[in-house]
Amino acid sequence: MKYLLPIMLLFTFSVPCFAVEGMFPLNDIHTLDLHQHGFEISADAIYNPDGISLIDGICKVNGCTGSFISDDGLILTNHHCAFRTVQMASTNGHDYITSGYVASNRTEEFPAAGYAVRITKWYRDVTADVLSAVTETMRMAERTRAIDKRRNEIITRVEHDYPGHRAEIAEMFIGKTYVLFVYIYLKDVRLVYAPPRSIGEFGGEIDNWMWPRHSGDFSLMRAYVAPDGTPADYAPTNVPYHPKTRLTIQPDGVNTGDLVFLIGYPGRTYRHQTSDFPAYEQEVRMPFVVDWYQWQIDMMNAMGQSDRTIALKHASRIKSLSNTMKNYRGKLKGINREHLIARRRKEEAALQKYIMDDANRAAQYGTVQTELADIYSNVRTHTDRTMILHYLNKNVTLLNIAYTLYEAAVERQKPDVERKADYTERNFGQTKQKLEQSLHDFYQPTDQQIFNALIAKATTLLPDQHIAPIDSIMEAYPSIDEFLDTIYHNTTLTNADTVRTLFIKTPEQLTQCSDPFVQLARHLYPLYAAIDNESKSRKGATDQLYAKLYDVKAEFLKQKFIPDANGTLRLTFGQINGYSPNDAVWCQPITTVTGILEKDTGQEPFNSPSRLLDLIHEKKFGKYVQPKLSSVPCCILYDTDTTGGNSGSPVFNAHGELVGLNFDRTYEATINDYAWSENYSRSIGVDIRYILWILDEYEDVDYLLTEMGVN
Amino acid sequence: MKYLLPIMLLFTFSVPCFAVEGMFPLNDIHTLDLHQHGFEISADAIYNPDGISLIDGICKVNGCTGSFISDDGLILTNHHCAFRTVQMASTNGHDYITSGYVASNRTEEFPAAGYAVRITKWYRDVTADVLSAVTETMRMAERTRAIDKRRNEIITRVEHDYPGHRAEIAEMFIGKTYVLFVYIYLKDVRLVYAPPRSIGEFGGEIDNWMWPRHSGDFSLMRAYVAPDGTPADYAPTNVPYHPKTRLTIQPDGVNTGDLVFLIGYPGRTYRHQTSDFPAYEQEVRMPFVVDWYQWQIDMMNAMGQSDRTIALKHASRIKSLSNTMKNYRGKLKGINREHLIARRRKEEAALQKYIMDDANRAAQYGTVQTELADIYSNVRTHTDRTMILHYLNKNVTLLNIAYTLYEAAVERQKPDVERKADYTERNFGQTKQKLEQSLHDFYQPTDQQIFNALIAKATTLLPDQHIAPIDSIMEAYPSIDEFLDTIYHNTTLTNADTVRTLFIKTPEQLTQCSDPFVQLARHLYPLYAAIDNESKSRKGATDQLYAKLYDVKAEFLKQKFIPDANGTLRLTFGQINGYSPNDAVWCQPITTVTGILEKDTGQEPFNSPSRLLDLIHEKKFGKYVQPKLSSVPCCILYDTDTTGGNSGSPVFNAHGELVGLNFDRTYEATINDYAWSENYSRSIGVDIRYILWILDEYEDVDYLLTEMGVN
Repeated sequence: MKYLLPIMLLFTFSVPCFAVEGMFPLNDIHTLDLHQHGFEISADAIYNPDGISLIDGICKVNGCTGSFISDDGLILTNHHCAFRTVQMASTNGHDYITSGYVASNRTEEFPAAGYAVRITKWYRDVTADVLSAVTETMRMAERTRAIDKRRNEIITRVEHDYPGHRAEIAEMFIGKTYVLFVYIYLKDVRLVYAPPRSIGEFGGEIDNWMWPRHSGDFSLMRAYVAPDGTPADYAPTNVPYHPKTRLTIQPDGVNTGDLVFLIGYPGRTYRHQTSDFPAYEQEVRMPFVVDWYQWQIDMMNAMGQSDRTIALKHASRIKSLSNTMKNYRGKLKGINREHLIARRRKEEAALQKYIMDDANRAAQYGTVQTELADIYSNVRTHTDRTMILHYLNKNVTLLNIAYTLYEAAVERQKPDVERKADYTERNFGQTKQKLEQSLHDFYQPTDQQIFNALIAKATTLLPDQHIAPIDSIMEAYPSIDEFLDTIYHNTTLTNADTVRTLFIKTPEQLTQCSDPFVQLARHLYPLYAAIDNESKSRKGATDQLYAKLYDVKAEFLKQKFIPDANGTLRLTFGQINGYSPNDAVWCQPITTVTGILEKDTGQEPFNSPSRLLDLIHEKKFGKYVQPKLSSVPCCILYDTDTTGGNSGSPVFNAHGELVGLNFDRTYEATINDYAWSENYSRSIGVDIRYILWILDEYEDVDYLLTEMGVN
Repeated sequence: MKYLLPIMLLFTFSVPCFAVEGMFPLNDIHTLDLHQHGFEISADAIYNPDGISLIDGICKVNGCTGSFISDDGLILTNHHCAFRTVQMASTNGHDYITSGYVASNRTEEFPAAGYAVRITKWYRDVTADVLSAVTETMRMAERTRAIDKRRNEIITRVEHDYPGHRAEIAEMFIGKTYVLFVYIYLKDVRLVYAPPRSIGEFGGEIDNWMWPRHSGDFSLMRAYVAPDGTPADYAPTNVPYHPKTRLTIQPDGVNTGDLVFLIGYPGRTYRHQTSDFPAYEQEVRMPFVVDWYQWQIDMMNAMGQSDRTIALKHASRIKSLSNTMKNYRGKLKGINREHLIARRRKEEAALQKYIMDDANRAAQYGTVQTELADIYSNVRTHTDRTMILHYLNKNVTLLNIAYTLYEAAVERQKPDVERKADYTERNFGQTKQKLEQSLHDFYQPTDQQIFNALIAKATTLLPDQHIAPIDSIMEAYPSIDEFLDTIYHNTTLTNADTVRTLFIKTPEQLTQCSDPFVQLARHLYPLYAAIDNESKSRKGATDQLYAKLYDVKAEFLKQKFIPDANGTLRLTFGQINGYSPNDAVWCQPITTVTGILEKDTGQEPFNSPSRLLDLIHEKKFGKYVQPKLSSVPCCILYDTDTTGGNSGSPVFNAHGELVGLNFDRTYEATINDYAWSENYSRSIGVDIRYILWILDEYEDVDYLLTEMGVN
């Protein structure tokens, strides 16, 4: 059972620094013998809810992780995490994506609209409270709604008790355990420094998810608060936030074989789900997404070819689509190569045999696996239809705006605790802001082509899967284009002010609204509501089945499990370690800036700034040179257990000093989401020496180095 | 001076198996201390003009090298060398390209039209004889013609004295030394075995020029002679040729660090030319060719997409274009990455300083380098025009046929020794055969598109570079297409019989011929004649300059040099050795069949036969398993000095036993043509164990293994 880590096993390792599977919740680390694993720092120094510890220097920056590296709220995170802000800053005549962004003093720090920083304050188990909302007689969808409502109630209560904080309840084991997290929530975040894209994203989509790597994927942001120290929206009068602690930078970096550990907010893994889930992903969902994203990327690239302004509008979306697409391609390859489904099925068969060997167990658990299989099998029957509806809402900007307006109107008729998360009082402002931002990147010909392609897809669905409002369109108009020309011509949703006024309407008022997109959204609403209901119903069913499955699996394997990643604070450890991606190839775990010279072609995405090339040619390595490598270390590779959301995670040495900045995994490790392996699971970070060398030798921003305490 | 190997240095190496630059002419190996380099075989056992030695078991198969591995003339060479025959065999309803070709007995061996086998019999220096044709007063083009004529005279005389043999005179050092080679010449060659393309070319264009490799790039052919043992054209009554010796196969293969040596016919290197030559290649010629070949490949791929018959017609051409294109891309990258031009210029500056430091030297050699520079610089002024004319003749099949017909008529008016090589009595049959073969692959829409693209290119030339006959076309026709539609409609050159009858016409008769392609060729003829004359004149000039340059360079560096590769028999040695292609990557020098599983996607070019995958999955490795690797070795990597023409070269161990079959170089080693380096020069072979495993476990062709003496 490679993919399930028995916690008890951790105590039997005799070799320190041996990599293990596990994104450990922070309270679990007190049960690990850290010293035996090579740590030179105590569990309390890492996580201490009653005092000051490393985690007070770590935050969540939207979907990424960040580190406080100064007493004045300076945050180190990835270039790709701050990219949207660089893109926003680039509209006023300056192309900061290309040139990089350097605030030469605090007044030049650029407000990162839509960004928020969260710092984990404390957390506790609320399983009993959450599950007390459920009764035996509830139907499945009802069960899910009851749990969601109770979660909202707890959150509302906690946030009321702790002003300026955000509460979240995370499901740790599906349907089984729930933990309440309380975060300090800072809404004034600003961009301090971003390197040129040709450094921050050197290698672009070609090198993305690849090792060896030479990307300087880092940036600096800063969290601000009101003059009285409380969280506040952006205001020029705000002052830098003072974190409880800051991380210590170790400019000497690491060496091959050194222990490293990461703390961060890994997003989502699926290691506890049955083989039916990766099989569904592999056979149905991911191939659909890969094709669809590739089409969108090709189309947007073509659109932007002759016009830099359009290209800039598309930059962030293309980057995000490409990232997911290559991740999926890696997963598809890895699932095959590792025979993942077959291995899981074998394990499940062994478990089933164990269950059926005992009459009591058979009665209690005998049908759990087949019931789960039936659920996944049912999903397959209408995946294409669901996907088309999903991407109509997600990828057609104007339809997304119209739908959000309509759904908001409906949801906001309900009591706050019963609303969908996006429309609760605490989140509604952000939802509105996100819509306005999507208009910022809106380009009508692109939007219309995407809409066109999805309608065309919809017309190929099997008769019983047809989408009625689209059938009506096809009947009413001679062609898809004619329909689209008409509605894009008549809509007023491209105007941010119009969108704002429509946000205060009731469903009845919106029914009177003449905007064709709003009308279409209204007609589509019942379809989405049905999908949502089905999904809640499914969750209700799987929740109960998975809860049972854990119990019997734990009994069978005599093990405790680590919960799947769910965006909450986790620690993972391992060592600086190379790997063999292919027959006859061994990759070393530390690259150097000299490798930039090898890769540089002068053409995107291998077009380093000439001054950077000069510095390398002239060996102006300063104090950041690694003598054995005769160069500045650039990126590092380690066998810790990470996933998306670990972007921006600090990489610590055994002493808990900052030696790197996590930003990616290898292509082979994209299947970490389903299974971790010592052989192929490798994560990629920027070496702290490269970051310091760039700031010092390339940018010469002494004041920042001083602030970071390394000058 | 990395790229010039001082022979004297060879005696000072203390480490055996150390790789050295050098494609040694066979008589030079007697001056090497082979034993000290790790050889367990004497120079005489490798090359002995008075007895039997290894080279009697080695032959030239068209542009490739082959090995006799049975007493009945069985030849081991590359799949890509025999590919044209597999393609020819594939027209009678069977797709042998896909399925592979297995002759289950000798009557099934397929005649390889257009193939010839040459076995080096002896060679001697004929410099004095050749250069005695030259007088001081000759103009440059005249000088070249005189040398060519004298070479033809010697060849004719020798071939008259040795019936059934072919003579060739190779220029060893440009303008300085000439060697006469006499070959046994066998014209009846047949295909015995070719693996499925998915084995022989596993990885296709993606893996071509790449390591790690998993291609089974081998095939078996057989040479036949008349029943009396004399060379003869194909006849069903012919019998297998009995070589003087056959190579011994070592089924145990090799290990990392082992000495290996290769014997073969490397085609062409340019290490002795001044920096102006690679600079011209890099800046002018190769970028043109890369663009033009990429365009042709894309177009032919599109043409073949919906019709397998058309795809088959294009297969060989696409393969050849892709191969050259990727080689050039590798060279362009390597020249930059290794700063080749800058390094050469520095060396040339040092030499110039040495020359100018002495008044006598300055007088004798002072202007040699600048005169060479002027010549190369002059070539640049009309490269585009020359290239367009070159590819009109080379890539437009019907124009090539028409031009060859017309040029043949002109040339065959001259005495035989004054004709261009293609039209001498000894070669004319082959020239005619080649034309007929090109009709075999002819597909009009493709030919017409190529013609169209070249005319379009010609219209963009600067006014003083214009091609008059094309200007006339543009004046006479409303569009290129209209012109092309007309001439392709009216031509009769697509008929092989017509082409044959036109081959006996005089220039005057062809002037009367109504075929539009013949008329166009006639109008283009003076342009090609002028280019030819200019090229001869340039060669006359550079010949003399390079002869001087060697003298002063040898004096300056106190070294003897090894001549550039020129298609003559050479030996190179080194060891089984990995390398680092990039920062942080180390490649091991032996791959295994297990790596095929990793690469296989089920999609071309990674679509292994399912039976092969099964054999690997089931570990049916037979006696070919390498215990440490727990698998069958697949391909091997070594640091010998090779270039194109070494395709098919036998790879020997220290005892002179066959352990592999050379078929490629790494991407980094494509610049071997300009400079060899221990760091990046690596060649790639099929491991003998993979060849034997395929024949034994996959094909089960026992009778061939018995014939090869390994059963």
